[in-house]
Amino acid sequence: MSIKAYGAHAGNRPLEALEITRRIPGSHDVQIDIAYCGVCHSDLHQVRSEWEGTLYPCVPGHEIVGRVRAVGEYVSRFKPGDLVGVGCIVDSCRHCADCDQGLENYCDHMVGTYNGATPDAPGHTLGGYSEQIVVHERYVLRVNHPEDQLAAVAPLLCAGITTYSPLRHWKVGPGHKVGVVGIGGLGHMGIKLAHAMGAHVVAFTTSDDKREAALSLGADEVVVSRNADEMEKQANSLDFILNTVAAPHALDAFFALLKRDGTMALVGAPASPHPSPDVFSLIMKRRSLAGSLIGGIPETQEMLDFCAKHSIVADIEMISADDINQAYERMLKGDVKYRFVIDSKTLKGNEAKV
Amino acid sequence: MSIKAYGAHAGNRPLEALEITRRIPGSHDVQIDIAYCGVCHSDLHQVRSEWEGTLYPCVPGHEIVGRVRAVGEYVSRFKPGDLVGVGCIVDSCRHCADCDQGLENYCDHMVGTYNGATPDAPGHTLGGYSEQIVVHERYVLRVNHPEDQLAAVAPLLCAGITTYSPLRHWKVGPGHKVGVVGIGGLGHMGIKLAHAMGAHVVAFTTSDDKREAALSLGADEVVVSRNADEMEKQANSLDFILNTVAAPHALDAFFALLKRDGTMALVGAPASPHPSPDVFSLIMKRRSLAGSLIGGIPETQEMLDFCAKHSIVADIEMISADDINQAYERMLKGDVKYRFVIDSKTLKGNEAKV
Repeated sequence: MSIKAYGAHAGNRPLEALEITRRIPGSHDVQIDIAYCGVCHSDLHQVRSEWEGTLYPCVPGHEIVGRVRAVGEYVSRFKPGDLVGVGCIVDSCRHCADCDQGLENYCDHMVGTYNGATPDAPGHTLGGYSEQIVVHERYVLRVNHPEDQLAAVAPLLCAGITTYSPLRHWKVGPGHKVGVVGIGGLGHMGIKLAHAMGAHVVAFTTSDDKREAALSLGADEVVVSRNADEMEKQANSLDFILNTVAAPHALDAFFALLKRDGTMALVGAPASPHPSPDVFSLIMKRRSLAGSLIGGIPETQEMLDFCAKHSIVADIEMISADDINQAYERMLKGDVKYRFVIDSKTLKGNEAKV
Repeated sequence: MSIKAYGAHAGNRPLEALEITRRIPGSHDVQIDIAYCGVCHSDLHQVRSEWEGTLYPCVPGHEIVGRVRAVGEYVSRFKPGDLVGVGCIVDSCRHCADCDQGLENYCDHMVGTYNGATPDAPGHTLGGYSEQIVVHERYVLRVNHPEDQLAAVAPLLCAGITTYSPLRHWKVGPGHKVGVVGIGGLGHMGIKLAHAMGAHVVAFTTSDDKREAALSLGADEVVVSRNADEMEKQANSLDFILNTVAAPHALDAFFALLKRDGTMALVGAPASPHPSPDVFSLIMKRRSLAGSLIGGIPETQEMLDFCAKHSIVADIEMISADDINQAYERMLKGDVKYRFVIDSKTLKGNEAKV
């Protein structure tokens, strides 16, 4: 089964139209016609080989929404026509403690939606910048949002769960004061979700321009992190910080804002390390620096249901597949509010050149 | 009241005999004849001005044990002749949330036993390398060990509580596998305490020589951290790591040994930062890097009682006050098993030269 996709043949080459194959759906598989796919910063890191181990051709995309085309004979939870999503995970070992607890995201054998190990051709998984995908039912999510919100649901599958999971894990809720650092794809979801969970939300940005936008996303306060006076006013006041910034930056200024026993969780993965944190920043108030990776499948469904209930979607800008290289350049400049989403219909007209 | 002490007039000068004064005991004060004082690595950092802000003359020492000489009129918990201890804290604001919760160690106005702000002459506190100390009863601990163990109890007041507090905070106990990194003053206490709490203890050392010693302290396993094979065998297996090493070192190799949701708590404070940790080490298993600072006063009493019950003391080498400069040099080389303790009687013969 050959389908159209968009991807790259090497880290130093632009993305271009490709023809790829998907496996014949097995008895537990769900075959999905992709309607939209969000564009995540990880896509860019991976396709440009900024992290180690990218396999080519690389077809990125792990914020996938669409409609079920067909299901295998043992699939009971989905039927043709259902609105569904696929996030960052398409397989895992299914029998370790992590998988048993629904934390497939921490399974040592977790298979990413792209660049993961698979027996399918070409030997590694190919992502959502494509017309179709075939996924084991365990890793398929149900979308309960109204259909006209479908494109804006796509980014929930990565940006949404990546921020929802740590907010839940560190028990953010009413009475908490929570910082969200960075107002981009992840950060704008972090603000919306923390607000909906009932926390007092302080958004941190490097640019004064984003003040109004952050307030309209649901922030109660906005702090320009380059302004030492504004930062000082937040000292020792935050219960939790969700740090979404993927570029290396000094962490110490944010530690100083945490109360005793506060945690700053990193969800952005920079290509090179942050400047080393000052040990005193941690020791003096028993603070923690943590990391969090996406979320498990049951929690992703919980997040989608939470978002449907609270009418939460991402703020998006729709693009055609052949806008993707330009979109990456704009993403690097922070010139997007707040997530690009590829309209998968636009893949149809493209002819692969290679 | 002039008494003999040992301290330094500048960061680049050796410690020498000094005459200092103590305040006249107030109505809530306990006046203590110091019997022994442990020698902590922090003493060296502070007196040599390796951390910022050392005030001179500097008299270090915050592992103090002795006997009550006199008490103020409102003191009910202590009487002359009692065996007592004083640790790192001699005052705090007494009305903040931290103080109310018995976490005076995290109070913003915590006053250290030396180099802290005080109205007493010379305007900063002077520590336990001295014949006597006068301390508000709130910060005085009761020692229930047999008197012949008194010298070996002294290091519990800093090395003991600094390791006990994080082990308790992160709920170490039976069924846990706990790493203790570094087998020095702090680490040897960490091994003894974690063992007494019922955990399976893995001691990490850079030197093969310390294997037998670590086992005899209570470790169940010993890993030479320079041996990649030994390290690999512990991968993803530890619930908690207590890292006691005060020198900058790579943390990533230890993160890899933590299970999902595991925490490495730093209790050593290096004069320059550790190499920056790899964010992926944290993100991939939702691990945390934390810090912990000594412990509160009620928890210090709890620790002393726990140690008395389990017959735990430090392993010490007794020295005279005028051996202190040589002891610092040996401490820097790791040539001590595991804590020097000054016999305060040896202060008597010294005449101050300045």
